[in-house]
Amino acid sequence: MSTTSTYTVTGMTCGHCVRSVTEEVGRIEGVTRVDVDLASGRVTVESEVPVDDTAFAAAVDEAGYEVAP
Amino acid sequence: MSTTSTYTVTGMTCGHCVRSVTEEVGRIEGVTRVDVDLASGRVTVESEVPVDDTAFAAAVDEAGYEVAP
Repeated sequence: MSTTSTYTVTGMTCGHCVRSVTEEVGRIEGVTRVDVDLASGRVTVESEVPVDDTAFAAAVDEAGYEVAP
Repeated sequence: MSTTSTYTVTGMTCGHCVRSVTEEVGRIEGVTRVDVDLASGRVTVESEVPVDDTAFAAAVDEAGYEVAP
């Protein structure tokens, strides 16, 4: 079974930003797929268990961006 | 002796873009220093011999951006 979570990330401006976020979020344990839409900032995460919001925010921060409230 | 050339590069939106341009331009033979100002797009290149405009444009293209005319 897998779950899907969606977040909005602010500050991404180019394909490099997308790649950074994808990489960092992809490192969260249990994450099996990350999809980032640059135009909207929408990040969709598929994981084996529901992804922890704090872990997600930490990964996005590590990449240099922020999760919208 | 060294020469300094300045160009304007369009399309850079973030620090990753700056890094890509800096890396590619830094690979041009004879280049000893590259300085990129993200806000203005201004790229300053120091080199042992005058940098070839075509080589510069090719490096910027390789990074994924364009030199302003």
